[in-house]
Order: sequence, then structure tokens, then C-alpha cells
Amino acid sequence: MDEALPLYQQAASLSQVEPVGISCHIGSQLTSLKPFVESTQRVLKLVDQLTAAGIRLQYIDLGGGLGIRYNDESPPTVAEYAAALSGLLAGRSETLILEPGRILSANAAVLLTEVLYLKQSQGRQFVVVDAGMNDLIRPGLYGAYHDIVPVETIEREAFVADIVGPVCETTDYLARDRTLPQVQRGEILAVKDTGAYGFTLASNYNSRPRAAEVLVDSQSYQIVRKRESYEDLVRGEKGF
Amino acid sequence: MDEALPLYQQAASLSQVEPVGISCHIGSQLTSLKPFVESTQRVLKLVDQLTAAGIRLQYIDLGGGLGIRYNDESPPTVAEYAAALSGLLAGRSETLILEPGRILSANAAVLLTEVLYLKQSQGRQFVVVDAGMNDLIRPGLYGAYHDIVPVETIEREAFVADIVGPVCETTDYLARDRTLPQVQRGEILAVKDTGAYGFTLASNYNSRPRAAEVLVDSQSYQIVRKRESYEDLVRGEKGF
Repeated sequence: MDEALPLYQQAASLSQVEPVGISCHIGSQLTSLKPFVESTQRVLKLVDQLTAAGIRLQYIDLGGGLGIRYNDESPPTVAEYAAALSGLLAGRSETLILEPGRILSANAAVLLTEVLYLKQSQGRQFVVVDAGMNDLIRPGLYGAYHDIVPVETIEREAFVADIVGPVCETTDYLARDRTLPQVQRGEILAVKDTGAYGFTLASNYNSRPRAAEVLVDSQSYQIVRKRESYEDLVRGEKGF
Repeated sequence: MDEALPLYQQAASLSQVEPVGISCHIGSQLTSLKPFVESTQRVLKLVDQLTAAGIRLQYIDLGGGLGIRYNDESPPTVAEYAAALSGLLAGRSETLILEPGRILSANAAVLLTEVLYLKQSQGRQFVVVDAGMNDLIRPGLYGAYHDIVPVETIEREAFVADIVGPVCETTDYLARDRTLPQVQRGEILAVKDTGAYGFTLASNYNSRPRAAEVLVDSQSYQIVRKRESYEDLVRGEKGF
């Protein structure tokens, strides 16, 4: 913040440069309004200082970062977020820009995966599924929590298991020490809230083609991205 | 180990199943021979127990895991590894199978990346390069160390910097607190030892096409995998 005012003044002094906006981004998956309010107040103070210095901005980009519910988080609603910001921005002439990402898409998608088999080792129970860290790396990369449920909602006992993929390393897990219904080989599980940082982070690790993407609208659906083939894995390689 | 003998006996009792081998894999990037020797001794003891029980195996797969030098590790040489194993296996009739991976390829590749710019923030120095976590995720995923050197080996001062990519998150780094020659914008750095778990873990995160792969043989080279295009990013999507 301390460097911004002199930098704007320097930019404004250049004949080829016209400062027209300011952007801030304070992080991601925030579950409280306080940091948004505080950072906005600081940005607006700077904008007012710039105005006083003769530099009138047209755009204020307050970034993204509003959190979603993966597990037991209680993020603000969009209405609460809007109310907090509009209170601070009322009467201003600048155009407001926001960069919502996760909050638009994360809860809108599930990753469907089949249970390959169950195994027990040294007192631990494992549910081995056909989706791996190449399909969803957030648990392995960030220790992220994704709710995982069987798509068949029949009544049954619960058990505690690690839900792991078929890739040959310990990072290949979707959940650890998770309580879930006693699932069976062959049934389909839904890994929830995978619409952000899911497919976009997918790789072909272990020579695994990436999954198909399917858009569902009530009772109808469209395959919007084809399942990759083995041919796709070697596309671009010399001689293939 | 305790479950293996009865499981082999159960398998041998089935008319449709013939147990022909045993596999073990004790981990990856091991820099001492001791675990290999100990696990091989345990496997051979089991093989001998199986032979005594009338189950004669044809194959012994001792897996992989031999480490390489990324930084200051002193892994055993292949000759030392071979000597240790052949001492244990001398006179045996089974076929030995090994699964070397990293040791064959890791040191054989570098990731080349251009310095986009240098920046300083709150007393920290950053070298921003055009390779990101989508190109090499080992530092972000495992905290892995990769040596990074400028390809121009001119004499110059050293400095301490984080070497980071252009992707919009804090996981996007190749090295932290690294002492390296005072590099300049526009020059090329080599991220070393990226031949294993490098390109194979690459993704299209942040809509970044994957890099070309180039095979170098002394003074000649071949592009063995084409650089991906933006068209590749949307291949398979409906309407493209």
C-alpha cells in the first residue's frame, strides 16, 4: 500500500501511460466478510488520495475470494457480500469489477467415480476408486476436504475409511479417515464441489486419460467435453 | 507379510489360479541400500517358505525406489545396488524383475524457462519465470528440491530469491529462499532433474498449454512432443 501512491504518481507523469484503475485480491476461500470490508476500506482510501492528487480512476477491481461450503464452513451469502460492499461503495462514480470464480462454479459440479474394491491393511480400511490424484489433486495438494457420498442413498451402516485412487503413490487420495456409508464394489460415488480447481488441475499422470465433462440441466444432459482416449495421450509425440 | 503365506496357499489351492511370482515395492527416492537389503531378505525368506510349502515361484520383482541426487543426497550407485542384490540372490533360479523409473530418467532432463521479470515485495526477492506449477508440480506438491541454474554460466554476484511461476496462487513456486546467480530478465534458467514426475504430472491449469519435449543427443536435437496450442486446450469440447 505504501508504494502504490508514489507509483501511481510516477505512472501519471508519463505521457504514454494513463492510470485508469486499481485491483486488489486478498486471497481465496474466505469465509468471513471482515477481510473484504477492511481491504475495500483501504483501497477506497487510496482511491480518494489519488483523486486528491489529481488522478481520477475509472475502475475499482475488488477481486474474488468469497468462500464456499465444502464441509462445515459458513461463508457469507452473495447477498451479504453485496450488502457489505454496496454500503462502502454507495455514491461512488467508479465502475466496480469483481472476480468471482470458485463461488460461481465449485458447488455446481461433482466428480463421479466407481468403487473398484475395498481393502483392509494394518487395521485401516481403504475404498479404492477409479478417480485419482490426476483427476482431483486438491486433497493431495492442499489437504482439501471434499464431501463424498454414494449416489444410491439406501440406508446402511457407516464405516471409517480412506478413499484412495488407483495411482501408485501415497498422495493419491480423495479423503482420509472419512466416515461414510458402507459402500460396495461397483457402486458410484459423488465427490462433491469439484467445479473449481477440479478438472482444470487434472493431468495425464500415470498415463490416465482425463474424464469426460457432462452438463446436466434437470433431466437432460450434454457431454460438453469428450472423455480422453489413449490416442490423446500421445498426440503431438513424434511418430504417433 | 503375515498374510502372504496363507494367501499364496489359498491361491495355490484354486484350480484356476497359479501363483508364479512375488512383487514388493518399499518406496521411492531411497538413498541407502539398507532398506533394499532388508526387504529383499524378507521376501527371499517368504519365497523359501513358499518353496517348502510346495509353491515354486518363477519371478521375484523387487520393485524400484533407488534414489537420485537432486541436491546433496548421496544415493548408492547402480553398481553398489546391483552388488548388494546379487550377493543376496546368487544361486537362485527365479527370474529377477526390477522397476527402476526415476533413476533412469530423472537426471536426464531439464525444464528450460525464461525469466519474465524480477520483483521485490516486503523484503523478499522474486524471480518470476514462465514455467509454473502446471509444468512442474513437485515443489508445490511435495516440497521437492530441484536445482535451478542459468544456462549462461557467466561470473556474477549471488542473491537469495524465490523462483515462482506466473500462475495466480502461492503454490506456484519452483524454489524458495534459493541462492542463485543474479539472473536478469529474459535469460533462460534450467530447472534440473525433471525427467521423472515432471512432464507426466503437467496439467493445463490456468489455461496453459503444456511445453514441448526436446530430445538432445550431443549436438543434435529432435522435438519429440510438440508444444501444445490453445486449440489443444479445447479439443474435445462441444462446439470446438
